[in-house]
This record gives sequence, C-alpha cells and structure tokens, in this order.
Amino acid sequence: MIKASIISIGNELLSGQTLDSNRAYLSKKLLGIGVLVVSGYTVSDNVDSISRSLHQSSEDADIILVTGGLGPTDDDVTRGGLAQYLGVELELREDLLEKIASYFSGRNREMSETNKVQAYLPAGTDALSNELGTAPGIAVKAGGKSIYAMPGVPSEMKAMFEDSVLGVLEALTSGQAVVVKKLKCFGTGESKIAEMLGDLMERGRNPLVNCTVNKGVITLHIISTASDKVEAERIGAEVETELRGRLGELIYGSGEQSLAEVVGKQLAARGKTIALAESCTGGLVAKLLTDVSGSSEYFRYGWVTYSNEAKTKELDVSAELIEKEGAVSEEVSKSMALGAKKISGADYAIGITGIAGPGGGGKEKPVGLVHISVAADNNIESSCFTFSHDRNFIRYLTAQTSLNMVRLALSR
Amino acid sequence: MIKASIISIGNELLSGQTLDSNRAYLSKKLLGIGVLVVSGYTVSDNVDSISRSLHQSSEDADIILVTGGLGPTDDDVTRGGLAQYLGVELELREDLLEKIASYFSGRNREMSETNKVQAYLPAGTDALSNELGTAPGIAVKAGGKSIYAMPGVPSEMKAMFEDSVLGVLEALTSGQAVVVKKLKCFGTGESKIAEMLGDLMERGRNPLVNCTVNKGVITLHIISTASDKVEAERIGAEVETELRGRLGELIYGSGEQSLAEVVGKQLAARGKTIALAESCTGGLVAKLLTDVSGSSEYFRYGWVTYSNEAKTKELDVSAELIEKEGAVSEEVSKSMALGAKKISGADYAIGITGIAGPGGGGKEKPVGLVHISVAADNNIESSCFTFSHDRNFIRYLTAQTSLNMVRLALSR
Repeated sequence: MIKASIISIGNELLSGQTLDSNRAYLSKKLLGIGVLVVSGYTVSDNVDSISRSLHQSSEDADIILVTGGLGPTDDDVTRGGLAQYLGVELELREDLLEKIASYFSGRNREMSETNKVQAYLPAGTDALSNELGTAPGIAVKAGGKSIYAMPGVPSEMKAMFEDSVLGVLEALTSGQAVVVKKLKCFGTGESKIAEMLGDLMERGRNPLVNCTVNKGVITLHIISTASDKVEAERIGAEVETELRGRLGELIYGSGEQSLAEVVGKQLAARGKTIALAESCTGGLVAKLLTDVSGSSEYFRYGWVTYSNEAKTKELDVSAELIEKEGAVSEEVSKSMALGAKKISGADYAIGITGIAGPGGGGKEKPVGLVHISVAADNNIESSCFTFSHDRNFIRYLTAQTSLNMVRLALSR
Repeated sequence: MIKASIISIGNELLSGQTLDSNRAYLSKKLLGIGVLVVSGYTVSDNVDSISRSLHQSSEDADIILVTGGLGPTDDDVTRGGLAQYLGVELELREDLLEKIASYFSGRNREMSETNKVQAYLPAGTDALSNELGTAPGIAVKAGGKSIYAMPGVPSEMKAMFEDSVLGVLEALTSGQAVVVKKLKCFGTGESKIAEMLGDLMERGRNPLVNCTVNKGVITLHIISTASDKVEAERIGAEVETELRGRLGELIYGSGEQSLAEVVGKQLAARGKTIALAESCTGGLVAKLLTDVSGSSEYFRYGWVTYSNEAKTKELDVSAELIEKEGAVSEEVSKSMALGAKKISGADYAIGITGIAGPGGGGKEKPVGLVHISVAADNNIESSCFTFSHDRNFIRYLTAQTSLNMVRLALSR
C-alpha cells in the first residue's frame, strides 16, 4: 500500500484550542482510495520545525500532506518552511498576485499589503488553486515524494483537496481499489458484537472488518481491497451479507445514517406520524428527529413536560397516578405516551421519564433509571433501563434507545 | 518556558476514525501550568514507530507525554516501544499483576490471560496507578527527559494525569506561573471583537489575549505569565477589566459556561421560570436548557409545535393569523410566546418560528429566516434574523440567539 504522512501546522493545534479535524478528514479520504496513513506530525508556526517535520515525514511516507500556515500573517510560515526543506528561495509569482488581487476586487474589498506574501512560492513548486480564499496551495515532487501544502481553514482545505489533490492520488493508487462500507448498529455493546462476529474481525483478513463505538452507536467498517473496484465491492458485499445474517436487527442502517434518520424514513414510507412526550430527555428526542430535514412530514407535536404539573395539564397524566407511582415509573411513561398519541392524533407516540442526574437519584430509583413507552394503535410497549456515566450520556442514550424502540416497532 | 511533546499512539487515530481529544486536553492542561507544547506525533501501533517518535520528541522537548497502546491486545505495544527506546527489556512486575487480578475479582469477572501483558514494564521504570482500568501507566526519566505513558481511553488518561503527573510537572515549572482566564461572548463576529479590542490582542503582549470561535460563541483567552500566581492573576484581572469595559454586554460568562447555564443561573437567582414554544428549532432550546442539571427549578413546560395545527391546538395561535401572516412571521412567533407564557404560567416565554432548510425557502422568506419573540410580564420583544450555512448551524444559532435575548432581558 502507498503510505502517507500528514503534517498539521499551527500553534492553535498545539495549545489545545483547536481539534485537528483536517487530519481526521484527510485520513478517511486517503483510506478510501487505499492510501495508508502511517504518521502524523503537529508542529508550531516555525520555519525550522516545519522543515524538520518534512524531513521526518519523508522517511515515513510516499505522500506528504501539509495543512495550515498559508495565511497572510507573520505566523504563516509554511511557505518558508517548505522552501528551507527544498533548499530553494521563495519567489514572487505574478499570476498568483493578480489572482489574489482579483479575489479582493471581486468582493469590493481592498487588498491588504500583507496578502502579498501569499503570492510567494518556493522556487520550482506548483500552485494549487483556492476557490474559497486567498491562500494558494503548493504542490511539489521532491526526492520521490509528493508533497501537497493546503490551507488550515477546513472548508478551503477540503475544496482544494477534492479539486486538485484527490484525483492525482487516485491515479497513483489506481493499481488497487479499496472500498469501505459502514454498517451502523445499536442495542448492544462492542464486546458482544465482537463475540458475535468472531473470526470475521480477525486482523489481516480481506475484507477487513473493524468496529468503532460512539455514544452507543457501533459502526462496523468493511474494508475490501482488490485489483479493481467491482471485485472489491463484490467481496465486500459477501462479508456484508454474512454480517447482516449474524447481527440481524442490531444493524439499523449504513453509511452515516443516524437512528433518527432511519426512523424518519420508515415513518415517511408508511405514511405514519409520531408525537413525543419527553421529561428527562428535555427535548432531545425532538431535536434529533428534527435534525433531519423533511421531518415535518411525520413529526408535528412534541411536549417537554419537565414538571409534574405540565404532565397533568398538557398530557392528561393523572395527578393521583404520579402521586402513587412516582413521576419516574412505567405507568407514568405509558400515560405520557398515550396522552401524546391521543391529543396529537399521531400513529406512534413516545413517553419518556427518568432521572438524568446528577441530583435526584435515590436507592430505589437511582440516577440513570429511565422508563420509555412507545404507544401504537393497538398496543403499548414499555421498557426500563439503568444507564450510567454522566447526565449528557444518560440523556443521549435514553433518546437513542427510544428511537430504536420505534424502529423495531416499525419493522414488525 | 519548559517544553513538552505529545505522542499519540493508535491506528484508529491515523485512519481518521477517532479525533485525538487527549492531545487537546493535555495541551490545555500544560499551558495552564506554563509548559509550552512544541510538537505532536501521531504514530501507529508499531514498536519501531513508537521508539522512533520517542527519539524525535526527545529532541524537541523536556517532557514527553505518551497516550495509548497500553491495553491488553496484540495491538498495544507502547510498553515494547518504550523498552526499545530505553534499550531495556520488559519485566514482569508481580505487584502490578496482583493489582490487575484484584481489579477483575473486585468486579466478579475473570481475568483474561491477555491482561497479563499489562503487568510487564520496561526495566527501571515506575508504574502509574490506574484507578479506572487495568492498564498501569509508566513514568521514567531518561537522558534528562521526563517521559509519562498513559492509557488512550480519555477517562483513564485524565484521571491518571491529574492524580499522578500534573503535580510533578507543576513542581518542575514552579519558577513561573501562567494563569489562563476565559471570557465567553455572544452576539457579534470575531472580526468585530478583534476591532473592538485592537491593541489588546497584539502578539507578544503579556497578558496575551487571543480568541477562538465555535458556532457563534467567541472565547477570549487571557494568558498571563508572571513569577508567581498572585502576580499573574493580578495582571490578568487588569486586562479583564479593560476587556469587559470595551465589550460590555457582549460578554455573557466565563470559563466553560454555556448561554443556557448563564440564563439558568439568572432565572434561578430571581426565582423566575421560563417556557418554550419551538417550531424550527424542534426542541433544541429545551435540550440546551435541560443539559444543565437543576433546570427543573425554572423550566417546566416546553412545546415543539412543528405543525400549524399544533401551534393552534396547543398554543392558541389563531389559524387565521397563520393563514394571513404565514407560519414564519413576527406575529406568529409573538403569539406562540404569549400562548406558552399564558398556558404555563411562566414568567418568561420564548416563541420561535423559522425556516431551517434546506427545503421550504422562497424569495421573500429564504432559508435561514427566523423570528424569535421573548414574552415577559409587561412586554414582548421580537427580532428577525437571517442566518446562513446549513440546517444544523441555522438551528443552533437560532437557539443560542433566543437564549441570548432572554439573558439580555433578564439583565435589564
């Protein structure tokens, strides 16, 4: 496999003020075309440091991607660092100067004197066009290594990478095709999934299957390598069928799909609607559903009944029931779901009540205890969970679990 | 200033599946005690790569922090990489083996054979206790450099760093104190803030003032360096007073405070309550308010009236008004706020209606148009905005802006 190294330049990355999302983006893109990222360097806005990191990268890799340090200020010294590494001078490129000037005149803004430095490139290098900003990128081949320097602003970097770099790298790797397919799972833990998949997850296999977890959602990556794309897709599809057979309903979607998106699609396809009655999740389920554009088709009514009074007044939950069973109880979650369904006229309704913490927990009803009910036309289903970790995690897992219950109800 | 380098180990970091939040955390902590992070390395789970990165780091820095690769699987080879760098063998530490065994027995789980490797440390190094997991950390001083290897799981790493490493580093840097204070601003752009602050933001000053932006919230960092903490705090406070004078109401809080937290504190302090009537934000304002624990004290009722019918039925917004003005109009946002206030009996109520997109926009009412009303006892205030970027950003900025309007109303 062709190897790449990524150099991220900027004091803000070293001081912890900014997370390096460029590196994650580039790594994913490179993996997608079968280029293996073998090392990453984060260095300060300093000519010597940049030059040294280029020397180090060139020992690791065939392709070196650099982000950051191409702006107009004194801090932006990637041009100088690259020139030092190459052992050449910076030279003014009149064509770039004109382009930068026209960027400003096109926006009725005056070009500042400092922007001129962006028209200087190390001698013998090529400029990469920047459609979204003033900083041109730089491409050069030196000592058998391909080096690309791009801006640090993520939108500019992405546009430049996709317009000018990705295609060249794809051509370099055209002897080999890598196809990555992602399957999304919810409803069990990582170790359980690993147990169910067993041999399929062994290292060194092709397709390679690995798994990452993010807040309860488990993503399985099926990475297939072959001499061409069709073959890579074919062997990937075989493994996917096997995975789906083993995991069944635990797989809720693919790619970047969220549970809310999948539930929304199911509802829309069946012409059904949903209403929400939330207490401890405080509007989070509504937020997740309405993150999806077009959700007004199936979601019309939501209540955040954060007080007992609101539960009674808005959802007709009887005050006696709350008094007798407690606000956090299966009966109250059922009554909330039924109230929401009846008042809204929706086909499905979720009722959620629980203790998100950190306060409010007791011995019998600890922090993390939640009751979720899903009411449908002829039945109502309730489940009780005890989630752990912090308030945010408990709320998020509760919201996702409620959506998963609706998904399973809709699949039946 | 004492210099540090951070080495992050793990294939998942190089493949872009995981963002390196450990590095950002450590960088911030180090900055807080006056240690400058000068370089960062991201390397794969490979003994040679780890050993080589340690050599590189030791050229850059006095302190080397390593995260990741201390787990029990074949991929976890930080122990071996460190041994190779030090030129020593790994040796079994019986005391650590016992500790790992007792970790499992205390949880009624069987210790797997693979966990034994975690009891091996490079000869001559010290173990760092891990209160949250099985992997001990490693501390060693070699060639005048202090090296600390910690687990990659963020919670374990943080606990270990704070328990066993931070104190030692603080002692090392005790000759110099650095105090960082953060002020949070909302309601204008970064360039406007930079203009208002002018000379205060020049580089090389002490205290140094810099600014980062995240989804509309601008964070000003005041970084003060002095021979002792009291003096650093004193010069920081002087600059803070100056900043507050220039920015006035644009500053809503400090540290890690969110707008929802500040609004919650104001409401609680005045014994006031708030209700929410949301359309395009779809529960996001409720979610933000209830992210704060204890929010049940001031937040009791929320509606997500995503359809016109729900606005009429739940909030008494007249169907004729919606027909006449359109659902996205100042009048409807006012009527939603007034309805929510009246029905809930709250002291304040927010009414939000808008077009989050990507669909639903027109020439007169484009995507991003939102109307926000805040009703109080004797008055109602409305504002209209046109936000850009994508659905997520429009919704988030709308929610934050509505909270900011409540904050300003409560400050009067």
